[in-house]
Amino acid sequence: MSLTKKPSTGMKDILPEEMRIRDYCISVITKTYESFGFSHIETPCVEHIENLCSNQGGENEKLVFKILKRGEKLNIETAQSENDLADSGLRFDLTLPLARYYSNNQAVLPAPFKALQMGNVWRAERPQKGRFRQFMQCDIDILGEGTNLAEIELILATTTLLSKLDFKNFRVKINERRILKAMTAYAGFDEDKTDNVFVILDKMDKIGVEGVVEDLIANGYEKATVDKYMELFTELEKQGDSIFAKLDFLNEKLNGFIEEGVIDNLKEIFESVEASKIADCELAFDPTLVRGMGYYTGPIYEIEMAELNCSVAGGGRYDKMIGKFTGNDTPACGFSIGFERIITIMLEKGFKIPGESEKIAFLVEKGIDSKRMGEIIKEANGLRNEGKTVLVVRMNKNKKFQKETLTGQGYTEFKDFYAEALKH
Amino acid sequence: MSLTKKPSTGMKDILPEEMRIRDYCISVITKTYESFGFSHIETPCVEHIENLCSNQGGENEKLVFKILKRGEKLNIETAQSENDLADSGLRFDLTLPLARYYSNNQAVLPAPFKALQMGNVWRAERPQKGRFRQFMQCDIDILGEGTNLAEIELILATTTLLSKLDFKNFRVKINERRILKAMTAYAGFDEDKTDNVFVILDKMDKIGVEGVVEDLIANGYEKATVDKYMELFTELEKQGDSIFAKLDFLNEKLNGFIEEGVIDNLKEIFESVEASKIADCELAFDPTLVRGMGYYTGPIYEIEMAELNCSVAGGGRYDKMIGKFTGNDTPACGFSIGFERIITIMLEKGFKIPGESEKIAFLVEKGIDSKRMGEIIKEANGLRNEGKTVLVVRMNKNKKFQKETLTGQGYTEFKDFYAEALKH
Repeated sequence: MSLTKKPSTGMKDILPEEMRIRDYCISVITKTYESFGFSHIETPCVEHIENLCSNQGGENEKLVFKILKRGEKLNIETAQSENDLADSGLRFDLTLPLARYYSNNQAVLPAPFKALQMGNVWRAERPQKGRFRQFMQCDIDILGEGTNLAEIELILATTTLLSKLDFKNFRVKINERRILKAMTAYAGFDEDKTDNVFVILDKMDKIGVEGVVEDLIANGYEKATVDKYMELFTELEKQGDSIFAKLDFLNEKLNGFIEEGVIDNLKEIFESVEASKIADCELAFDPTLVRGMGYYTGPIYEIEMAELNCSVAGGGRYDKMIGKFTGNDTPACGFSIGFERIITIMLEKGFKIPGESEKIAFLVEKGIDSKRMGEIIKEANGLRNEGKTVLVVRMNKNKKFQKETLTGQGYTEFKDFYAEALKH
Repeated sequence: MSLTKKPSTGMKDILPEEMRIRDYCISVITKTYESFGFSHIETPCVEHIENLCSNQGGENEKLVFKILKRGEKLNIETAQSENDLADSGLRFDLTLPLARYYSNNQAVLPAPFKALQMGNVWRAERPQKGRFRQFMQCDIDILGEGTNLAEIELILATTTLLSKLDFKNFRVKINERRILKAMTAYAGFDEDKTDNVFVILDKMDKIGVEGVVEDLIANGYEKATVDKYMELFTELEKQGDSIFAKLDFLNEKLNGFIEEGVIDNLKEIFESVEASKIADCELAFDPTLVRGMGYYTGPIYEIEMAELNCSVAGGGRYDKMIGKFTGNDTPACGFSIGFERIITIMLEKGFKIPGESEKIAFLVEKGIDSKRMGEIIKEANGLRNEGKTVLVVRMNKNKKFQKETLTGQGYTEFKDFYAEALKH
């Protein structure tokens, strides 16, 4: 019989040490977000294939693990394409299933609905170091709240959580999809082609302003348009460090290209978050922030760890997705933390879980009679009820080595039980 | 665009109310089992198809959700069977993945290894009320412990857990696969055909002794053999309520048909568990207990709720499975609670989660300025840090109705914030 020991390609077994950190994080996440009034929910890992391939998920739709039809529905002989063979697949994110969930259960959910989701998602990406095909996502979303109270609460909840997980010095970068659109419209880019322009603008932090200019021109955009955009962008950067100076500048410049109130709305977010935010958290208006997903419609945001130079959370407003299920647009706003990245960072910095219980090992010699064994276990249970961890194991011949190994597993106290009382 | 609102066939969306109970149970399970020295681990939901279809899983192997190959590996034109199309599938239980996990990670795991697993499994069963195609399993296993200390700890840990979840009056029914085998051998059944005999004996609680006799004869077993088995069974039942009288009777009767020490080993389990067990828990030797899976090799056990007349946990020793991966037999012993059944029972009896936090709602009128909003949120955060849940929501026009709805969601305290101070 030939069985395979390794996990499925690109997936991983989680060892006890990592699992303890994951469980700790999950409990802090649940507690923190629940204190903000978010309700934990769950959708099935398996979704209808028509939902997974509905153009809501952009590039991720190409990475779906598809599930074979079963029984009579599977007709291999006549099958022409994958769609003839698969009727469902594994979810690639938690946002699309949330939209389906909300449309299915709206009648019994509070309005607005504040949802917390923690769950695995699957993407058939090319396997590479540190990137897995099954990974955990952790999202909060507020559905049915059209005002910026949603953004303010999401940003505050997420930064509070990161601080409770002992992260310091982070930066919340905020932008607005409608500002991005107005800036490109102002420069003269075709409004129908902004998605492609955004993809290129998104590379600013990697290839710099010059790289972006070259890339835009290489993609066939007119030099005059590109230059006009860059002129506006450079002028904006010159407004100094004040968020409000920049936003006032844009309000004037983009007059006629942007809906009224969009910039005031963003200012309110900055003001309210600034007034209520925790220490160690800096706010920034970042006109280069794009965020990949095409479904965003309003403010977008990302949290960056200054020390690590990486993003640990991201989100935005997506007011048009739920209407695709229900026929009625529902305002929606989400923030997702990079759960796997956070776990990696915590493991790397050797995070110690606060308040871990005392660990005691009872070493029981083989041959001890069963009544005595019952008493030993009763004693162990008494200590367990006091909140201690008690491991009852058979005593090895090499007791010294056994205790050394157990010490390595965090056991700090030992008690030996022998078959004959004389040996004590 | 036609998107589907309902979850995938046979799967379910979990609403906030149920999720709170699930989260509570998961935290009690983790805490209780960790106090016994079990380590929480996780395997990927996706497993190699060759492992899922290796004859370890019995009937469940027919119910695997198979995952389509991707890219060049998928060749629809030349595919003849499902095996040409699928390279992996969703796990149908947590035992087979544990055996793979242990064989893959043995070098870095403690010996013996006490594992706790909680995770979803998938089975493409015919959809029916109360039965789902995705459901949670919760298993504890002890690998590498050959003595009955494993069984004693598993039984004690599981009964302690059920009691912490507020279950009372339960019955641990214990049997031994080797006693079942010896009893059938004594009666004259062919040793190679015991699996089929066991399937029929397993129906005893549903169709009674007479039904089993009829069924055995209908399946072609000789009347003399069947009668001899039933004679032994009836005589055993006559030994009264004492577990030890029954085991002593079998020890004598089965002499020559059973390995030495098997019955003494079982007696020790009863004695030790009896001496250390919690209240409200009755132990029973049940010679009719078979348990479905073919992989069991020693003691088997099930926990029955007297009031509900249903089983809430089951397990046994399976010393031969891990060797199929590693080439070396490793003693193994597990106990699985029926997580979904437990949740259903708790929801039905209206279980109240102890120590839930106080819930306060801040109602904020639209139009409040953003600095003031920041202060309100700061006040909310202060209360959140004290362990309270604070929901900040926009005030509706019908404030009375809004508060009634929030009361229904468990909010007991309200604070109103108006745009103009005068309205106070």
